[in-house]
Amino acid sequence: MTINRQRLLSTLVEPAETKLLLIVLDGLGGLPVEELGWRTELEAARTPNLDELARRSALGLAYPVGHGITPGSSPGHMALFGYDPIECEIGRGVLEAIGIGLELTGNDVAIRANFATAERRDGDWIVTDRRAGRIPTSECQRLCDLLQSSIERIDDVEVIVRPVKEHRFVVVFRGEGLGDAVNDTDPQAVGVPALAPKGEDEASERTAGLAARFIEKAAMLLRGEERANFVLLRGFSKVPRLPSIGELFKLNPCAIAVYPMYRGLAKLVGMKLIDVSGEGIEDEIEALRSHYGEFDYFFVHIKPTDSRGEDGDALGKVRVIEEFDEHLPKVLELNPDVLVITSDHSTPSVWRAHSWHPVPFLLHSKWIIPESDASGFNERACARGMLGHFQMIETMSLMLAHGGRLQKFRA
Amino acid sequence: MTINRQRLLSTLVEPAETKLLLIVLDGLGGLPVEELGWRTELEAARTPNLDELARRSALGLAYPVGHGITPGSSPGHMALFGYDPIECEIGRGVLEAIGIGLELTGNDVAIRANFATAERRDGDWIVTDRRAGRIPTSECQRLCDLLQSSIERIDDVEVIVRPVKEHRFVVVFRGEGLGDAVNDTDPQAVGVPALAPKGEDEASERTAGLAARFIEKAAMLLRGEERANFVLLRGFSKVPRLPSIGELFKLNPCAIAVYPMYRGLAKLVGMKLIDVSGEGIEDEIEALRSHYGEFDYFFVHIKPTDSRGEDGDALGKVRVIEEFDEHLPKVLELNPDVLVITSDHSTPSVWRAHSWHPVPFLLHSKWIIPESDASGFNERACARGMLGHFQMIETMSLMLAHGGRLQKFRA
Repeated sequence: MTINRQRLLSTLVEPAETKLLLIVLDGLGGLPVEELGWRTELEAARTPNLDELARRSALGLAYPVGHGITPGSSPGHMALFGYDPIECEIGRGVLEAIGIGLELTGNDVAIRANFATAERRDGDWIVTDRRAGRIPTSECQRLCDLLQSSIERIDDVEVIVRPVKEHRFVVVFRGEGLGDAVNDTDPQAVGVPALAPKGEDEASERTAGLAARFIEKAAMLLRGEERANFVLLRGFSKVPRLPSIGELFKLNPCAIAVYPMYRGLAKLVGMKLIDVSGEGIEDEIEALRSHYGEFDYFFVHIKPTDSRGEDGDALGKVRVIEEFDEHLPKVLELNPDVLVITSDHSTPSVWRAHSWHPVPFLLHSKWIIPESDASGFNERACARGMLGHFQMIETMSLMLAHGGRLQKFRA
Repeated sequence: MTINRQRLLSTLVEPAETKLLLIVLDGLGGLPVEELGWRTELEAARTPNLDELARRSALGLAYPVGHGITPGSSPGHMALFGYDPIECEIGRGVLEAIGIGLELTGNDVAIRANFATAERRDGDWIVTDRRAGRIPTSECQRLCDLLQSSIERIDDVEVIVRPVKEHRFVVVFRGEGLGDAVNDTDPQAVGVPALAPKGEDEASERTAGLAARFIEKAAMLLRGEERANFVLLRGFSKVPRLPSIGELFKLNPCAIAVYPMYRGLAKLVGMKLIDVSGEGIEDEIEALRSHYGEFDYFFVHIKPTDSRGEDGDALGKVRVIEEFDEHLPKVLELNPDVLVITSDHSTPSVWRAHSWHPVPFLLHSKWIIPESDASGFNERACARGMLGHFQMIETMSLMLAHGGRLQKFRA
């Protein structure tokens, strides 16, 4: 369906003066929790504003990728933005780089790297610990500084080395004519040699050559280290060439997000990034209010629902939802033509991780049949809602249509 | 979606210790029946165990192939097993053969055959009755014995002839290098000549040659018969090469079924067939219990719901459902991690045949939002359930996900 579907939508779009607002409460969907009296986090939270809004809105359940599929952070967001979450693959190196806030250009090749322990034997590097004993992040920082200060360039290519967490870091090759079809050097096992990087085409062969020299230089610089004496590279990738939301859907879009990963994803699809003065929900809503005149599509990303879900902290997740509810009137005062409140995936606190469950979806607009008798905004009410159960990629079509931005399809 | 979808699912599968149990009540879905007070068979049946389970489970309605499409026996099961019911075509000859319990090898060409009445005229066989007056099954048995005893081989190819019902029988050519791209010889009309078999490629041309000689020999052997003096062949087919459930989904699967057709379908997708001591629901559940330690995916097929539906026997169908309900506690004692109770298609007793209606679907697992206020397990409650309305091919994704057997899709 989807690539053609996106093109179809694109041919029907016409500009309008309407304002479209998408609020993503990351990992919002939940499951019943014993300490909440077997209610979900959304059911247990005291949310008078959301509940009242739900009864004036249309509700549904959205599947980020498909039944049973648990999405990572990128597929759910790509679907919300109107991109096929299966077709639009964003490489692991690129995701890791944007996750730490690195700004990538279209020529960069980004690589996920691990510090590892390896032994030199008969010309090979035999990997003995793929994670160098999970060295602390401070160690990782020190070693990245060491590599970066000694390897600023290889030939005419700039090399960027940045720490992530524990043994993980990012390498970016910035230069012309580099391909990303290069195999992982991580053998995914211990007691075997690290693999040599090889390119599948000429441009990727050039990247592979740089990677081989980077590995050699790194091994030389790290030779005195007891654990982190070697590096493994994987997920070689370039920024995907995606048509921008602006071009596709004739929108002037912006993103209000605090975490680098989500700012990076928004940037990939061409959203303008808005500066936010702090990390709180209040700060993000303040940023929305002060830039409301400048754009017509707003993506607001709220992270802590997911973080508390991953921590298994049901009460914490309830409190984040309640905090959002308290600030909701300041959003409603803006009176957007289309308001969607949903999530990129579920993160039930009893599951302590992303899950495959469909996510609660609320659509407010003048052009809906309201759920007058809904119990409020929660999974059960959404399962019985006017919007039914649908694929998350339909979010953009629904927002555009309710914003009066889609022409009639044929005569 | 589906072929790529199956591949996607396959790349996400990881093994786990969980047990997945699929119980198929064949033809379960129904329609309101006057003698049941305009309730469906499921609504009318007294099913305290199923109803209580429904309130601790998630419900939905599954479409075997698509809206309005009435599936035969194979597409519904293929969808339940995670195979695209449209892409995965199983030839009519193969289906007929496995329906009577013939074990086919990968080289066999199986053919649906009819005894027919025909007149020899100018070198052609003019068909006058395509079903030989629907001779009784005992006649069919006698004539098949006659053909089989005289035609054991043609050249180096073994020929197997087995009766089905009335005028219908099965022919299998067992040998090397045989193709199945051969036209039907049945002209689908009377007063016209039977068609000569022709092959579309070299291997199929070889099969067509065998078929022509089989027809000639049969006509000779049957020349004294008043009605069944000729044979028509159609549905030439080989066993499709399907990847097994075990390979695709990293499962160790078994099937508990009494009817040959369903045992055959299970075998096609690589399930181990369990012997069942009798034909009753009780016997099948006993088989499940005694083999529960040996496998991690169990397909249990219960036939009489469909048979009573096809008979138009609403009360009989109600009684089968009630009998299953009585035995359900013995299933629940096993405490499977994932339990699905559903059907391969609907067989409303008022329709007296398979129908296109979506089927009731119950999913029990720790990781669902229960339908606490559901009236029980029936079509109406399922239509309003947390699982919504979905394509039956999603059954496998749902079972794997709830069994903790699918990795996250991308980062």
